[in-house]
Amino acid sequence: MVGMPVVDVPETPVATGAPRVPVPPARPFLHILGAHLRETFFPDDPFRAVAREDGHGRRAVAALRYLFPCLQWLPCYTLGALRSDLIAGVTVASLAVPQGISYAKLADLPPIMGLYSSFVPALVYAVMGSSRDLAVGTTAVGSLLFPALLGKEAPPAENPELYMHLAFTATFFAGVFQAGLGILRLGFVVDFLSQAAIVGFMGGAATVVCLQQLKGLLGLQHFTRATDVVAVMRAVFSQTHHWRWESLVLGCCCLIFLLMTRFFSKRRPRLFWVSAAAPLASLVVGSIFVYLIHGQNHGIEVIGNLKKGINPSSAKSLILSPPHMMVALKTGIITGLIGLEGIAVGRSFAMSKNYHVDNNKEMVAFGLANIVGSCTSCYLTTGPFSRSAVNVNAGCKTAMSNAVMAVAVAVTLLFLTPLFHYTPLVVLSAIIISAMLGVFDFPAAVRLWKVDKLDFCACLGACLGVVLDNIGIGLSIAVGISVVRILLFVARPRTTALGKMPNSTMYRRMDQYAMAESVPGVLVLQVDAPIFFANASYLRERISRWINEEEERIKATCEQSLQCVVLDMGAVAGIDTSGTKLIEDLSKSLHMKNIQIALANPGSEVMKKLDMSKVLMRIDDEWIFQKVGDACDYTLLNCKIATVQHNIV
Amino acid sequence: MVGMPVVDVPETPVATGAPRVPVPPARPFLHILGAHLRETFFPDDPFRAVAREDGHGRRAVAALRYLFPCLQWLPCYTLGALRSDLIAGVTVASLAVPQGISYAKLADLPPIMGLYSSFVPALVYAVMGSSRDLAVGTTAVGSLLFPALLGKEAPPAENPELYMHLAFTATFFAGVFQAGLGILRLGFVVDFLSQAAIVGFMGGAATVVCLQQLKGLLGLQHFTRATDVVAVMRAVFSQTHHWRWESLVLGCCCLIFLLMTRFFSKRRPRLFWVSAAAPLASLVVGSIFVYLIHGQNHGIEVIGNLKKGINPSSAKSLILSPPHMMVALKTGIITGLIGLEGIAVGRSFAMSKNYHVDNNKEMVAFGLANIVGSCTSCYLTTGPFSRSAVNVNAGCKTAMSNAVMAVAVAVTLLFLTPLFHYTPLVVLSAIIISAMLGVFDFPAAVRLWKVDKLDFCACLGACLGVVLDNIGIGLSIAVGISVVRILLFVARPRTTALGKMPNSTMYRRMDQYAMAESVPGVLVLQVDAPIFFANASYLRERISRWINEEEERIKATCEQSLQCVVLDMGAVAGIDTSGTKLIEDLSKSLHMKNIQIALANPGSEVMKKLDMSKVLMRIDDEWIFQKVGDACDYTLLNCKIATVQHNIV
Repeated sequence: MVGMPVVDVPETPVATGAPRVPVPPARPFLHILGAHLRETFFPDDPFRAVAREDGHGRRAVAALRYLFPCLQWLPCYTLGALRSDLIAGVTVASLAVPQGISYAKLADLPPIMGLYSSFVPALVYAVMGSSRDLAVGTTAVGSLLFPALLGKEAPPAENPELYMHLAFTATFFAGVFQAGLGILRLGFVVDFLSQAAIVGFMGGAATVVCLQQLKGLLGLQHFTRATDVVAVMRAVFSQTHHWRWESLVLGCCCLIFLLMTRFFSKRRPRLFWVSAAAPLASLVVGSIFVYLIHGQNHGIEVIGNLKKGINPSSAKSLILSPPHMMVALKTGIITGLIGLEGIAVGRSFAMSKNYHVDNNKEMVAFGLANIVGSCTSCYLTTGPFSRSAVNVNAGCKTAMSNAVMAVAVAVTLLFLTPLFHYTPLVVLSAIIISAMLGVFDFPAAVRLWKVDKLDFCACLGACLGVVLDNIGIGLSIAVGISVVRILLFVARPRTTALGKMPNSTMYRRMDQYAMAESVPGVLVLQVDAPIFFANASYLRERISRWINEEEERIKATCEQSLQCVVLDMGAVAGIDTSGTKLIEDLSKSLHMKNIQIALANPGSEVMKKLDMSKVLMRIDDEWIFQKVGDACDYTLLNCKIATVQHNIV
Repeated sequence: MVGMPVVDVPETPVATGAPRVPVPPARPFLHILGAHLRETFFPDDPFRAVAREDGHGRRAVAALRYLFPCLQWLPCYTLGALRSDLIAGVTVASLAVPQGISYAKLADLPPIMGLYSSFVPALVYAVMGSSRDLAVGTTAVGSLLFPALLGKEAPPAENPELYMHLAFTATFFAGVFQAGLGILRLGFVVDFLSQAAIVGFMGGAATVVCLQQLKGLLGLQHFTRATDVVAVMRAVFSQTHHWRWESLVLGCCCLIFLLMTRFFSKRRPRLFWVSAAAPLASLVVGSIFVYLIHGQNHGIEVIGNLKKGINPSSAKSLILSPPHMMVALKTGIITGLIGLEGIAVGRSFAMSKNYHVDNNKEMVAFGLANIVGSCTSCYLTTGPFSRSAVNVNAGCKTAMSNAVMAVAVAVTLLFLTPLFHYTPLVVLSAIIISAMLGVFDFPAAVRLWKVDKLDFCACLGACLGVVLDNIGIGLSIAVGISVVRILLFVARPRTTALGKMPNSTMYRRMDQYAMAESVPGVLVLQVDAPIFFANASYLRERISRWINEEEERIKATCEQSLQCVVLDMGAVAGIDTSGTKLIEDLSKSLHMKNIQIALANPGSEVMKKLDMSKVLMRIDDEWIFQKVGDACDYTLLNCKIATVQHNIV
């Protein structure tokens, strides 16, 4: 080594005896386990606020404030905030009443249940919820799922009693499922549904919901139970003689009115209340119109009698024994998952206003709202986007706006239900269609196509699955594509060859930087993933192919033969027994070819595992470096290369 | 900037106008798709040998050699290799005959099928297989699965005909499944079963197989159909008055003899043939002994008549129509998966002899062997470890040893079957038990416990699932634990803060290197995973917690306030639309706090996605660097920090 020119500026002393990369000291198993569990289930450290306080009393108060977020904002609640929340709450209520009735019809449930569902769950959320912007209520997709999933077990037309009880039970299970996920801090399971799949699924579901409204718009008496586009079109066009032009005209007028107000409000955001109040306005105008012309005698169906009074108890209707329980359980889990979309809505508003929403706490809040709701004649509620956007636009300050909305709906339930007697169903259909048109997210789909074709395929697949077959198939496709995507990500990590950047000690990917040059006699590979059972055998294959190709190249160009393979482990976050086996096998097979293996920048986790599995002993500390450059320089110095000139370009 | 001391040695010119990290030029979509598909399904570039040839004729020959590996070694096959393969083949056959009969009994199939299964499939594998060391045959675990999965549909005791036909059909489907996986190049699905789970599952299955042998050892007539340890123990001890001491004594003698020869051969590896021939020896001695003392009259059950002649056709027995087909299909898929263990066996021998085995080609070979086997009265075959180890020890050189074994078994079938008339069943039980004791991999379990506690839990869970409940449950636990492990890996990537190493421009993890120091005013975070939908929201949470904690720390210590957050993207292999959204949101929320965001060393894939999603425009080229050090230096220069001294420690 003496007398050889020093290649580049070695920044760490080479071969001083002590290992360059230390093996971390052993820690007790329970300690490690605790740290892992904390990082997995409590990445946001939710109890920080509680732990920071001194004394039992203060901690109890902090814990209560953690459990009931309303205790955080109530003490400093101002009159100004109350005024804002009052306005927002009343505005949302004027949307909630017609939407609630419409969606309940969509769910094949009594219309009054849509109003019930805007009362009790909203109160629960006001106490438990940590978002300031969400408005609680039913959604179109959630409503559509009930007849789709429960209809076979209890056809709503033939056995409305059983169907309603099953709906309560499914809501109960959805609540238990949501709260359970939250309490067990498993909120992250929702992350496994990719955004792309959700966009496609929601688009497909909105299409299906719109198609279902053709029944109401055309005033048809009989309709198909299927939701796919083919069956619906066949049902519509096979009974053209039953189309009612009166219904169609009224519906189209309403729809045009609603769309125009939406367009107007979008142009002038300050006039948001125009579109927010439009559904109620069309409801009122439509009802008066039908009352005046006796529309019910001219083929325009009306809602009819609505019971007066707030939510009756339904706790005794829950079906908690087989055989009907299983279908309710399944429906509960699926709708519970779909209902979690509300969390995403809350998060996006929180993001834009720069405050924090805790996923798991939100799940508990929604879950409790649904559990209490299922005992008080409500069905699945969540935080729908349309209603929450109106709430935000109306200037809500806290979850108090939900309480205001609940009170307004309660007043409607107590005193105003008779007014809905003459409300035409076709107006409800128009309200649903106009709401659904906002769910289509074409710009998002275009963005997906531009940025990531695979994401777009997932989106399209989920959408077509819903439209052409049924909601369940669409959801399965969405989940399936998402999971396959994850597994592919995991099973096929990237390995790239690194080269030396000119005038620098940096080593960078040669496929990215054209000026990066390979070092003769050394192959530097970077692995960009944890090495574990799911990718170990792929990596084995891929790395040996890299080495073979390099050897063939060297043979062809008569260059310096391969002396050392350097693995840049900087990006290897973890390793398991299959991974350590891979390194061991690799070092064995390289040893047989008389090639040295070197590791650069292994993390502490990797060092520990390599040490425990005795692989470190096989490689030897001498060949483990803090950076790639050191490994290459050491190889060049050690392997007595004749043509050092090559490297001092 | 003028006049300020230069901090460290900046290795790239800072702010020259051109972007430091170039966005890769757009490539045609089909081009990218092709590259992706190639990397996913053909990581080993299997057609390289074919593509390298010139001319159609030479390519056709190369393709044939690729399809039929025997064409690779046959042309240069030597007499010396033939001699080695002859010795190895005959040695394996002497093990294959007793093992085949034993395992067929375990599968509740006619004993002769065990011999059939060592004939035809072995010939197919000799032509198609690419491993030189595997010996083809039935396995204990595979055999046990048949009664476990098919027994309910067709109890072997009551309806042996239907049961046999279902076994053929299941073998057929297993073959189709295996060949299909191979042809579709989906061999990597097997990788998703972690090594740890397999060790546990095999250990559990071996326990169950041993427990089942208590029936034969104790000479019991009636036994339970359940496989769990509780049921078996109850069945054994509820009929102590039916235990036959003659059977037990003979069985124990055999077992002790077999174990002693195993022990002896392990001590002296050159005498491997002692343990390889021991089963046949005990079979012969046991049969002669029973014949002489008329053991069948003293409670020692014997095999009885075996049909003479090689495999009859069973193609017409395949049941390819409902209702029975479905259970056969399910059994086929499960046993087909289990049968793939042979590939792992082949790989490990190939590894030690330093040659390559192609997973997908092996799958096709095993699949074809099973398809052909199912039409010639064979049931599920694979490459069992015990038999292959004997093959290797006996000095096999090529797959020809399988052909030799097949011929030897055929000779047995044609002329020697009457000799097995008096073979006692208890000897077969002893042979199975002795073989199963080799399947337990205690050292592997101990290594798992030492290196990775979570892996050990997976191992234990799968083992207990098999032993305490049934094989199906054990398998589900193994798959479940493996998948959860993958999802956790994906959902919880590591983020670590980096610090500057003294006297260097390197930035390294501060939790690993105590001497790494944070740079005042800059928070450097490294993300060690592709950023995509499954971890984007976790990363959002975790990164914002890092920033909050850093801000709190700064507030407490009155240090320089946070100026810049540098994300080291060197390890981020890919990004999807959720990931770009995360970067965008992060940059927005940091902007609101008046903190700059900088990216260091993003890969080309990441740069492309960021560019297409317009996030790059938001961050600005100025804040994208080739290395972390540059980002920090640039921040320090740009943000006009008063206390530069801090950095020149």
